[in-house]
Amino acid sequence: MSTRYALGIDYGTNSCRSLLVDLADGREIGSTVFPYPSGELGILLDPADPHVARQNPQDYLDGLEAVVRGALQQAAAAVPGFDPAQVVGIGIDTTGSTPIPVDESGTPLALLPAWRDHLAAQVWLWKDHTAHAEAAEITALAREQRPEMLAKCGGTYSSEWFWSKILRLKRSAPEVFAAAFSFVEHCDWLPAVLAGDTNPLTLKRSVCAAGHKALYGTAWGGLPDKDFLAQLDPALADLRDRLYTTAHTTDTLAGRLCAEWAQRLGLKEGTAIATGAFDAHTGAVGAGIREGTLVKILGTSTCDLMISPTDRPLADIPGVCGIVEGSVLPEFYGIEAGQSAVGDIFLWLVNHLVPDSYGATPGEKFANMEKAMVGQKPGATGLLALDWNNGNRTVLVDVRLTGLLIGQTLHTEAHEIYRALIEATAFGARAIVERVEEYGVRIDEVINTGGLAVKNATLMQIYADVLNKPMKVSRSEQTCALGAALFGAAAAGEDTLSALQSRTTAVRDVVYQPIPENVAIYQELYTLYRSLHDAFGTADWQGNLHSVMKQLLDLRARATA
Amino acid sequence: MSTRYALGIDYGTNSCRSLLVDLADGREIGSTVFPYPSGELGILLDPADPHVARQNPQDYLDGLEAVVRGALQQAAAAVPGFDPAQVVGIGIDTTGSTPIPVDESGTPLALLPAWRDHLAAQVWLWKDHTAHAEAAEITALAREQRPEMLAKCGGTYSSEWFWSKILRLKRSAPEVFAAAFSFVEHCDWLPAVLAGDTNPLTLKRSVCAAGHKALYGTAWGGLPDKDFLAQLDPALADLRDRLYTTAHTTDTLAGRLCAEWAQRLGLKEGTAIATGAFDAHTGAVGAGIREGTLVKILGTSTCDLMISPTDRPLADIPGVCGIVEGSVLPEFYGIEAGQSAVGDIFLWLVNHLVPDSYGATPGEKFANMEKAMVGQKPGATGLLALDWNNGNRTVLVDVRLTGLLIGQTLHTEAHEIYRALIEATAFGARAIVERVEEYGVRIDEVINTGGLAVKNATLMQIYADVLNKPMKVSRSEQTCALGAALFGAAAAGEDTLSALQSRTTAVRDVVYQPIPENVAIYQELYTLYRSLHDAFGTADWQGNLHSVMKQLLDLRARATA
Repeated sequence: MSTRYALGIDYGTNSCRSLLVDLADGREIGSTVFPYPSGELGILLDPADPHVARQNPQDYLDGLEAVVRGALQQAAAAVPGFDPAQVVGIGIDTTGSTPIPVDESGTPLALLPAWRDHLAAQVWLWKDHTAHAEAAEITALAREQRPEMLAKCGGTYSSEWFWSKILRLKRSAPEVFAAAFSFVEHCDWLPAVLAGDTNPLTLKRSVCAAGHKALYGTAWGGLPDKDFLAQLDPALADLRDRLYTTAHTTDTLAGRLCAEWAQRLGLKEGTAIATGAFDAHTGAVGAGIREGTLVKILGTSTCDLMISPTDRPLADIPGVCGIVEGSVLPEFYGIEAGQSAVGDIFLWLVNHLVPDSYGATPGEKFANMEKAMVGQKPGATGLLALDWNNGNRTVLVDVRLTGLLIGQTLHTEAHEIYRALIEATAFGARAIVERVEEYGVRIDEVINTGGLAVKNATLMQIYADVLNKPMKVSRSEQTCALGAALFGAAAAGEDTLSALQSRTTAVRDVVYQPIPENVAIYQELYTLYRSLHDAFGTADWQGNLHSVMKQLLDLRARATA
Repeated sequence: MSTRYALGIDYGTNSCRSLLVDLADGREIGSTVFPYPSGELGILLDPADPHVARQNPQDYLDGLEAVVRGALQQAAAAVPGFDPAQVVGIGIDTTGSTPIPVDESGTPLALLPAWRDHLAAQVWLWKDHTAHAEAAEITALAREQRPEMLAKCGGTYSSEWFWSKILRLKRSAPEVFAAAFSFVEHCDWLPAVLAGDTNPLTLKRSVCAAGHKALYGTAWGGLPDKDFLAQLDPALADLRDRLYTTAHTTDTLAGRLCAEWAQRLGLKEGTAIATGAFDAHTGAVGAGIREGTLVKILGTSTCDLMISPTDRPLADIPGVCGIVEGSVLPEFYGIEAGQSAVGDIFLWLVNHLVPDSYGATPGEKFANMEKAMVGQKPGATGLLALDWNNGNRTVLVDVRLTGLLIGQTLHTEAHEIYRALIEATAFGARAIVERVEEYGVRIDEVINTGGLAVKNATLMQIYADVLNKPMKVSRSEQTCALGAALFGAAAAGEDTLSALQSRTTAVRDVVYQPIPENVAIYQELYTLYRSLHDAFGTADWQGNLHSVMKQLLDLRARATA
């Protein structure tokens, strides 16, 4: 039997990337990146409103051709006798919720001459935050009338999500709303493009995207009912008929590669195309998620993914923003949590508060701060921080929270604050782990992926010590694209996802083991963190914080004795 | 009548300085500085113990001659016909508590060949912190057995004060203690030197120095009783007989200039010499303190001085470290409070956390941070800080407190933190004002002195807005030496202190007036500050802090709308 490959395409915020994977062993034989040419780093901005973040759908199409052809060229060079016909399936993941207004044929309005220059007619990128008022309105209405829907997204509906954005579009650009026959998520549109049929009424919609972000749930008959939507705007109730009633897991065949795109990409017509998914979810699959695994995608923010089998009941977990059947793997609940800022907090520190004595560039500053931390014991800084500079996604689900640093003296240095911030993000990660474990989700191993997991050994060791679990790191640096490729293979009927994962995903040899004496100190620090967390983050906490500074001083004295 | 002058000599931590003042109008006609030559910046250190801070008494004598002769030379150049005989009185202020071990003649052991090189035989400078264990022991004993003594020093006896240091000396260098006939405060020794009689049993002791720092009180018969002292160490009880029973206000004549020192200094024999005092107290007088005035000496830390007439009862004020009859002016209680770090907090920020994009030197960084704050409204940073990086002297009297910063986002910049720290010190100042006002001490005006008062207009305006009182700035930049000079004149019988102050002290034309809209916003911020202050600083606070971050975000939204 000849070697078989799958192709994953990962659409990120500023670029897209291909990955061509050997399905026998996960070997990566081709991968190309295409930075989106439009706007600023691929994002269309509005100088008058910093919340605007849109994209040009043409970038997606141009990128598709570029990254696939690039990967195929690399494969041809790397593997003697490589034949594109050996690529059995294609999977696609994107950011989300990133809805696109489309006409009756499923063509984005932004690709039509009449709307090409209208900012509201473009793709509404996940990080567009113009709809915060609409999000608050949807949350309030759901809290009162449909609490069961809100419970699946942690109790708060976000301005980043589908309905907030559609409602905002309706209000701020009614002419665009009127011209839009329907709306399609970025991850749903591209598989349909490849299959040659973008009819919005019939193209396969992803349950991963529909899930909590469009308030889709089989328990209440799919999308929110018309009564609910009509209270937000009667036009939304009408729109419901032009969306979808069923959403699909990502291993579902979305279609087969049409002749036109087969030619444009240099692939075989009829190649299987998987239903789309959001990036964190395919990333979890590419990292090797299974029951008992927590996959942490560590970047500017983090996504935490877990799964729990659907044949066992799973309660709503307060503060956990997405529990969706099939959103990660079929026959499992996908459980999505995350921290609003991790790498972003470190970048904030290095860009705004680290003097040049640590180095001339952010990279040098990070490296020298890490050096300065060598040999410094937990507790030695005397500092404690909250990781809320960008709010708290899980478990408090509250954007109206901010950072906190305590324990500064007249001698506190920047690298000590850096350490306190790393520890704070680890404590935030532990709060998530404790919450999901408390609700019966098993976590036997933690697999980390993303830039910080690969590059920052100090951070990984602190995470191991704070979480008191070994920290593993995914072998692939492109877990999102790898997971997407595996869905392409599964949609092609190549094998079960579980079997595909076993063969192609792995962790690196370096595993960060908890160091018992550090674990003990971090247990004490975490107790203090929880005091601050609950005091500032919950309305029902009652108490006194008089001992916090004194305990930090005691810990420092012990650590430096 | 010919013009008459007084001479003030101010002994600081690193240098001493003279000031020759025209008693008719406060004109300053001569002033010279003498940096102490010994040790590091005048301080004798111990590489093995960072708490050690001693001084060489020879520096004081050498400095005395240098700064007086220097001032007389300047006066001769500036004032045609100037005659040193026109100097009617001399006053001296020093740091404290800064005790000197002396022999039976009152000669410092450190000036004797046998002890010249022994670190424990030198002057124990105010900032020597080797006696922290002894301070805790004295506090504990007094709390149990002599609470009335402890009440006058805010509830905690400090490692910086007289008995802590003597007890520490006894334990760490018993041979020095055995060789010491008595101990004399730096401020008491120098007037005796000038008068030509340093007999420790008869030289005039300052009530300003004796006050809370030696636990002296007329209510309990002077120094602490022998029973109390014997429990600390029987040798302290014996020592009590070789100290003093009466302490004097600073306007008391300590003696008259002896022939030898008249010749050395170039002054007239018999010139009146005032009893010594600590620097902050003469500084208050030189700034024009009277009933209803708060004098703030703004430096690396701050001293706050107020007075209240002794013909009205004055309760103990919890958390206020020094209430001593006559310590500032005769017939008034002197009330001393302070903040452990003010300028030091700003220096910490600029030296450790301000990137070079603000400038190459600390001075440039401060200047550019101030520029960046122009036009920024109160509340616009979204930040709030506690000013406890070096503990809290008043009103919490707790060294085991640390800094806190809350409200950081991913965009918070260094100059915003600088503003939050300035505001925090202003809130700390307000907590002191509220406490003393609550106990019946009137504050009608605030006169500021020290480097920050003169140089930092942004800070002064924030203080005016937070305290909701006009901020005045003392005209003289040498208020400590000026106050000392006025005591010299008073000791000479030249006039009453009140009359002398009226003629010679003044405030500058620039008065920082509260801006009503800022006052209103700072009222809200102060309420939040008090929540944090009480939550972290007091054992009896009970509550919840859930609204703090949200209120800061609301204030920011209003300020930037």
